[in-house]
Amino acid sequence: PPVAHCLHQGYSSRTLRSWQGVAPISPANLVYPLFVTHEADGCEEIPSMPGQCRYGYRRVVSEVERLVHEGLRAVLLFGVVPQSVKDSTGSWADCPESPVVLALQLLSASAVIRSISTLLVADVCLCEYTDHGHCGLLNPHGRIANTQSIQRLAEVSLAYVKAGADVIAPSDMMDGRVAAIKQLLKSEGYEHIPVMSYSSKFASCFYGPFRDAAGSAPGFGDRKGYQLPPGSRGLAIRASVRDADEGADFLMVKPAGVYLDVIREVRNRTTLPIAAYQVSGEYAMLYFGAQHGAFDLKTAVLETITSIQRAGADIVISYFTPQLLKWLKEQ
Amino acid sequence: PPVAHCLHQGYSSRTLRSWQGVAPISPANLVYPLFVTHEADGCEEIPSMPGQCRYGYRRVVSEVERLVHEGLRAVLLFGVVPQSVKDSTGSWADCPESPVVLALQLLSASAVIRSISTLLVADVCLCEYTDHGHCGLLNPHGRIANTQSIQRLAEVSLAYVKAGADVIAPSDMMDGRVAAIKQLLKSEGYEHIPVMSYSSKFASCFYGPFRDAAGSAPGFGDRKGYQLPPGSRGLAIRASVRDADEGADFLMVKPAGVYLDVIREVRNRTTLPIAAYQVSGEYAMLYFGAQHGAFDLKTAVLETITSIQRAGADIVISYFTPQLLKWLKEQ
Amino acid sequence: PPVAHCLHQGYSSRTLRSWQGVAPISPANLVYPLFVTHEADGCEEIPSMPGQCRYGYRRVVSEVERLVHEGLRAVLLFGVVPQSVKDSTGSWADCPESPVVLALQLLSASAVIRSISTLLVADVCLCEYTDHGHCGLLNPHGRIANTQSIQRLAEVSLAYVKAGADVIAPSDMMDGRVAAIKQLLKSEGYEHIPVMSYSSKFASCFYGPFRDAAGSAPGFGDRKGYQLPPGSRGLAIRASVRDADEGADFLMVKPAGVYLDVIREVRNRTTLPIAAYQVSGEYAMLYFGAQHGAFDLKTAVLETITSIQRAGADIVISYFTPQLLKWLKEQ
Amino acid sequence: PPVAHCLHQGYSSRTLRSWQGVAPISPANLVYPLFVTHEADGCEEIPSMPGQCRYGYRRVVSEVERLVHEGLRAVLLFGVVPQSVKDSTGSWADCPESPVVLALQLLSASAVIRSISTLLVADVCLCEYTDHGHCGLLNPHGRIANTQSIQRLAEVSLAYVKAGADVIAPSDMMDGRVAAIKQLLKSEGYEHIPVMSYSSKFASCFYGPFRDAAGSAPGFGDRKGYQLPPGSRGLAIRASVRDADEGADFLMVKPAGVYLDVIREVRNRTTLPIAAYQVSGEYAMLYFGAQHGAFDLKTAVLETITSIQRAGADIVISYFTPQLLKWLKEQ
Amino acid sequence: PPVAHCLHQGYSSRTLRSWQGVAPISPANLVYPLFVTHEADGCEEIPSMPGQCRYGYRRVVSEVERLVHEGLRAVLLFGVVPQSVKDSTGSWADCPESPVVLALQLLSASAVIRSISTLLVADVCLCEYTDHGHCGLLNPHGRIANTQSIQRLAEVSLAYVKAGADVIAPSDMMDGRVAAIKQLLKSEGYEHIPVMSYSSKFASCFYGPFRDAAGSAPGFGDRKGYQLPPGSRGLAIRASVRDADEGADFLMVKPAGVYLDVIREVRNRTTLPIAAYQVSGEYAMLYFGAQHGAFDLKTAVLETITSIQRAGADIVISYFTPQLLKWLKEQ
Amino acid sequence: PPVAHCLHQGYSSRTLRSWQGVAPISPANLVYPLFVTHEADGCEEIPSMPGQCRYGYRRVVSEVERLVHEGLRAVLLFGVVPQSVKDSTGSWADCPESPVVLALQLLSASAVIRSISTLLVADVCLCEYTDHGHCGLLNPHGRIANTQSIQRLAEVSLAYVKAGADVIAPSDMMDGRVAAIKQLLKSEGYEHIPVMSYSSKFASCFYGPFRDAAGSAPGFGDRKGYQLPPGSRGLAIRASVRDADEGADFLMVKPAGVYLDVIREVRNRTTLPIAAYQVSGEYAMLYFGAQHGAFDLKTAVLETITSIQRAGADIVISYFTPQLLKWLKEQ
Ligand SMILES: [Zn+2]
Ligand SMILES: [Zn+2]
Ligand SMILES: [Zn+2]
Ligand SMILES: [Zn+2]
Ligand SMILES: [Zn+2]
Ligand SMILES: [Zn+2]
Repeated sequence: PPVAHCLHQGYSSRTLRSWQGVAPISPANLVYPLFVTHEADGCEEIPSMPGQCRYGYRRVVSEVERLVHEGLRAVLLFGVVPQSVKDSTGSWADCPESPVVLALQLLSASAVIRSISTLLVADVCLCEYTDHGHCGLLNPHGRIANTQSIQRLAEVSLAYVKAGADVIAPSDMMDGRVAAIKQLLKSEGYEHIPVMSYSSKFASCFYGPFRDAAGSAPGFGDRKGYQLPPGSRGLAIRASVRDADEGADFLMVKPAGVYLDVIREVRNRTTLPIAAYQVSGEYAMLYFGAQHGAFDLKTAVLETITSIQRAGADIVISYFTPQLLKWLKEQ
Repeated sequence: PPVAHCLHQGYSSRTLRSWQGVAPISPANLVYPLFVTHEADGCEEIPSMPGQCRYGYRRVVSEVERLVHEGLRAVLLFGVVPQSVKDSTGSWADCPESPVVLALQLLSASAVIRSISTLLVADVCLCEYTDHGHCGLLNPHGRIANTQSIQRLAEVSLAYVKAGADVIAPSDMMDGRVAAIKQLLKSEGYEHIPVMSYSSKFASCFYGPFRDAAGSAPGFGDRKGYQLPPGSRGLAIRASVRDADEGADFLMVKPAGVYLDVIREVRNRTTLPIAAYQVSGEYAMLYFGAQHGAFDLKTAVLETITSIQRAGADIVISYFTPQLLKWLKEQ
Repeated sequence: PPVAHCLHQGYSSRTLRSWQGVAPISPANLVYPLFVTHEADGCEEIPSMPGQCRYGYRRVVSEVERLVHEGLRAVLLFGVVPQSVKDSTGSWADCPESPVVLALQLLSASAVIRSISTLLVADVCLCEYTDHGHCGLLNPHGRIANTQSIQRLAEVSLAYVKAGADVIAPSDMMDGRVAAIKQLLKSEGYEHIPVMSYSSKFASCFYGPFRDAAGSAPGFGDRKGYQLPPGSRGLAIRASVRDADEGADFLMVKPAGVYLDVIREVRNRTTLPIAAYQVSGEYAMLYFGAQHGAFDLKTAVLETITSIQRAGADIVISYFTPQLLKWLKEQ
Repeated sequence: PPVAHCLHQGYSSRTLRSWQGVAPISPANLVYPLFVTHEADGCEEIPSMPGQCRYGYRRVVSEVERLVHEGLRAVLLFGVVPQSVKDSTGSWADCPESPVVLALQLLSASAVIRSISTLLVADVCLCEYTDHGHCGLLNPHGRIANTQSIQRLAEVSLAYVKAGADVIAPSDMMDGRVAAIKQLLKSEGYEHIPVMSYSSKFASCFYGPFRDAAGSAPGFGDRKGYQLPPGSRGLAIRASVRDADEGADFLMVKPAGVYLDVIREVRNRTTLPIAAYQVSGEYAMLYFGAQHGAFDLKTAVLETITSIQRAGADIVISYFTPQLLKWLKEQ
Repeated sequence: PPVAHCLHQGYSSRTLRSWQGVAPISPANLVYPLFVTHEADGCEEIPSMPGQCRYGYRRVVSEVERLVHEGLRAVLLFGVVPQSVKDSTGSWADCPESPVVLALQLLSASAVIRSISTLLVADVCLCEYTDHGHCGLLNPHGRIANTQSIQRLAEVSLAYVKAGADVIAPSDMMDGRVAAIKQLLKSEGYEHIPVMSYSSKFASCFYGPFRDAAGSAPGFGDRKGYQLPPGSRGLAIRASVRDADEGADFLMVKPAGVYLDVIREVRNRTTLPIAAYQVSGEYAMLYFGAQHGAFDLKTAVLETITSIQRAGADIVISYFTPQLLKWLKEQ
Repeated sequence: PPVAHCLHQGYSSRTLRSWQGVAPISPANLVYPLFVTHEADGCEEIPSMPGQCRYGYRRVVSEVERLVHEGLRAVLLFGVVPQSVKDSTGSWADCPESPVVLALQLLSASAVIRSISTLLVADVCLCEYTDHGHCGLLNPHGRIANTQSIQRLAEVSLAYVKAGADVIAPSDMMDGRVAAIKQLLKSEGYEHIPVMSYSSKFASCFYGPFRDAAGSAPGFGDRKGYQLPPGSRGLAIRASVRDADEGADFLMVKPAGVYLDVIREVRNRTTLPIAAYQVSGEYAMLYFGAQHGAFDLKTAVLETITSIQRAGADIVISYFTPQLLKWLKEQ
């Protein structure tokens, strides 16, 4: 072949290959999602996500401190509450007994965590707390009441910030909630809190295990009216550009793996850092695929993280974070 | 929120969502990969790919005919031979007893298959036939001998075309093999046979189950010297543009799922139709993930196919093709 | 010729050709335009559009139900009223006796239509209802009064939504009417209703038969001051981008056939789904051309639909919809 | 509406509208296609193309001279021969009795035509002259023999140039014929003759009346193996870029009307002037549509020409050229 | 200010800042330039580059081995020879006594170096070896003889590869030398050796200390006829694209610091990995600036490396490499 | 080499080289930064910036007048005050005794300066005047109080305009200060005063000598919360686009040299003129590098200015301005 058509020589050794591709992700750019319960010292494994646990709001502190020593620099907190306390407005999202509120208070008081400024990112949504299981409030006809919803989400955000959250991450997909949250935080003197918007969040089937973990499946209907249709490039890009316009500090594409092309398109059209969420279904696929011998777990997970970086993400949210902190050190 | 920031109304019903996204894939654009053995009427399930079988070269004909009635319009054939017949030049790739040669002869003689012009796509590589398991020939130092390799691959391609192949699909990743194959086919009067190049094929860990299926793991070393480094956007684009320049009629990105962003980038830079190969590891992950209850198999597979289309692929090669033919009819 | 210059092999069979081009349009992405009169059960053929009828507001229900069984998922409604009731503000656009209002009430009450969420798209314009035949209100000097016009169009839109419309489609080309409509709908609690804007609507001569059908030719002057000049690329793109900024959920290029290049340019510059309207003059040309033996009707219509898709449209509005639903099934 | 959203003021008068759009086409950029027969002074109307005639090779001279006085600056010549003289190699394409050869000799000898350098463009194809009706030569299996075909087309081109052609326009869609023609012309000392390649010619149903006119329907099979699939953007662009690479001086998109988006894409990707052919089916549609009162013929034809220009074509080939020469003068 | 105009919150802590910017460079992507002399065990500091030494061809081995233990993965070798052995063709570039040849033989024989595949990159130029000090051969008029020069450079490259070089890096800026080198290497069986082209090398004054180090100042005239004019964007981009077309595997911009914008432009236009050379003058400026208290050396050097990465380089060639290997570990 | 690969001929002479690159900077596009003290006739050299002085507010007038005769057309004024007068609100920034206020009054009264309309650009910041040394006001918790800060900066700007400033240049990096300044100036009738925003100002270590000169090092903490992280492309572009949206008339990138790629990216994304500030650390590096013989000072400085222009800057702010005025005359 003509020499200009020969590519092999350019990646024929380990060092040459490292010249061709993305650098290994920095531990500081990994975010670990954690489920927090109201049983202070509880710790129970999540059946559909082997290796992942729900921690009590007190127990989670030592767990995070342990990982901080391993290099962890950011966690993303989800609350889990019993069905019995759920109501139409999701009161337990931000009441004083809310597991996320309690956990944020304790985590932000930890000297270990503060000393190296580990970020406490609070997921904000209502679906874990409402009796109907939808991500916003409903009007009497059972449809999303958008204006009231974003007001409520802003209140919850404010409560989390007061409890110690460093970053607010709304995952609800209501229209206009980034502006509403930023507005309220500002009027209360918290304009220094950045917002990481779940800006391109798809109505994906790969959230299944998460819903088990967080007990957040909708009681009726589905979320196709606010989460994005999987086939839509246009809406995904519009939603990201819209959230950037409303003042989001970070954008997110979720799920990461089945939407790598969307990461690339958002990357090409905006200048904000992009987070990508490797969701519970991806975790499960990689875990069970490896368990059945289809591939080696470490190799496969690292290939997916490399792919997410190559697609253009700056920040990766993954349930494999504890292992990744180790694997990255080994390299 | 300002009306221009509201997106919900645009995807609030089933028909509206279909206006937002990609159309369901046409059955004609699905390709089913099949493993063919030399035991004429054999049929054995592949342990790491539940539901997928290796068929004997005679048995495969009835299987394909059955699927053609379901709407199948293209198959991709791989050969599997016993370790005992492998040698340094992969003679069994194109000898008269080669299972792929025999299968092509029988398939192309089938009235059912011919009557509706189902495409017989022949994968061309040496790794299933060489004793060292590499995709090309080796020089005395154990390194790839590129010039001899592409000559050999062209010979194998010619044999397959003579046996009845409609499309040649080289998966070896040797430099310059598209030009070599086209050249030889033309000089022998077969310039009407298109080439589907595995143009952006990565050194992925997700080929594991395939290697079991085809018995094609390399005896020593690995394929990182010719398959692309997972983190490299640049090489992936260059390899696709290079193959287009050499006359490829179709490009391919493999694996599909973990490389959706690469499909988008190749789509934006070339005008050739793009095939995407949902590989064995992806099949295994989806299969075992669903088996363990992480999600519903049909929903999950359809979401991955939609994603591959959204990323820009025209043709999808998937082990789920038989199910997809059914599922698409149901919609 | 050099092999890289040979293209024939890539489209030498039916399946290969389907790999090269766009997939057949999904029935869900076709929209059927219908003319509705105030004579409840009327049904009269439109002379210049053989095969197309004006239906009474009651009669239209059974017609739509019949087509829904064939796969129809969206209709676009136009009203036709007698000259005698037209006035300067187009009162009959939204008075209780308005044929479109009555039809929407009945259609939205049909169990068949509701059960599979067939979309009722209401065209909004004044030209069918004003005595001067212009698309907006006029000031005393006989010029368009833009601010009053868009307020009036918003009122009509609200009336249609209250009567049951699922989508509002303003065809008037007044400046700023998308924002005005969205604003009013929102303030009345209908923010969930999407707007499909006739965003690039040209001052074309191919609307002739439609004007016969709808009785909407202007009484004096023409529409060149608000419909776009046929030769203008720049205005066509600006008008589409402007409407996207005002919150349109879908854009439209009208006519489709003579403006395929505009569809492509709007596609490349926006992320909204694009509808294309194959207008009455196009219908007539195809019909009479086929009638005189210039070509086969089905083949010709399908070639035009394929071309509209190739140019980048997601949604096609065509008077051939009933036939297309059949032809698509046959393929 | 915000001032930035107001567009009306920009096209509120005739002059402003002319500032927004394309200039009227120059008569010099129109090309008139003419069918030439071997009956020297013959003149017969073509039934499916009312108003268009087949002229004898001598009669055509006075016809062209007459139009030259009206402003005509280019003709495109097609030959029509009786079925009885057709053979497998299309001998009558370039034999001394060939109507095109004879017409070129006479036309190029006309003082009127020469004095104002009216361009004689010779269409080059074999389908009007072969007994099988295909555009190239066939091999014994009835398939296109591409290498022999382009050699034959080059010979025909040379004969036309020797007879007086100013421009060679190959319409056959064989791979590599532009290079073959340029090569032969150069080796014979005619490197100054430009080639206008039918580079993006689709397998359209809108050629029907032309086939009647030229008697060139294929005897068996169809032309889908060399004319482009209507839905394929990629092949259309590749074919144009390929022909530009082979040295074409002008590119052509055919048909014009249903492929306006392709004109725009070729315009954006190449720097050659683009011709667009408004084909016989388009002529018939416009003619019969106007005849049945759907629209005014002149207005409609002018809108189609404006659209072709807006899409990016520099040169328009149209059967309406004689009328256009008049209509343009009237403006 | 409007919340969407507030940026502070997005970079208000250490971890947030790491989310905003480029990851720390991987040690594997640093290249250390070394000057090699013919005095086997020599070691002398370079006066104008404090801390940098010229090593004898034997002594250099232990130095590299020491750094390999610190994480070094690539060196770039320059030869230094006494004025007395220089001649018109630069014989000592590749004669058996050439320090680079001798060093490559010894380095490539080192078990330490081979075991972890540290890359031996050989700079190829003639200026260190010619009596006239120009980078190519001269014709009798004292002008560059380009054709002979690139032949000679190819010969030198071949000698270095035979001696053990892993990568050839031509720094001469002759037209066409990448193609010439690749061609010769291929014809001799070394097609697996990649070429890193100094593709955008400017006629900069910041090479001063290097010329002292290598003794390579031109005897008369200057290099403005082959090194690029500092103000030229156009030539810099063309030269990079040209070298990519000739088959370069890696491109280089030199100097790095004063040409960061060129790195960005080359990055946006090509898909090859880009190396950036922080040259001797940049080293001196940073060293002496810090020595005089203008800034802290470590902070300043790391800011320059971050800037080079931000501009788009994948590989950084720096005299600070030994310190960087330490500093990166400390972070 | 193929002719298309030969570039030398295009820059083989001095004139050709000048055709390839940027024109020498016009003296009118240079800005000279000056430090002004309250000791009316003072003049003391700055130790870490040899050749640069702090001038008293009266003394500075003759210095500027002198340079105006050399071609100077713009100065940028910074104030230096004794530690003893600094307070929490930076009162001395705009009190009647403020050295900048006094200097502006005298400079704007100079007939020499006015006669040739030399621009008086006033840097606006608080760090030289606050006891805590931060660029904005602090709240009780020691964090930046953004809203109060931008109000204060607007007041200072107004004072400078009243004292005679022609251009206001805020260097503080508070969010929203461009809008605040423009608003206040407009409400006071000074809407004709343009604002040059330090829009992309990085937290660089190359400001060291400046801090000595201006006595403006922060008393505690650092400026990483408002100056941009060096590795962040995204924030740099966003901040520039944001300031353009707020009405800035000129943008600035600071420092120039280590951020040339940012200049290019801002150039490509905005249409405002761009100033680039060659900062004190760059001055020191060039000065001491030349002093130690690494290169010739004039050649090196001119190469850096050329590079800043090539990267896209229109205006260069440099401490070398006095020398540049001479050197440019010599060319
Ligand atoms: Zn939720
Ligand atoms: Zn292989
Ligand atoms: Zn109207
Ligand atoms: Zn033909
Ligand atoms: Zn040199
Ligand atoms: Zn400051």
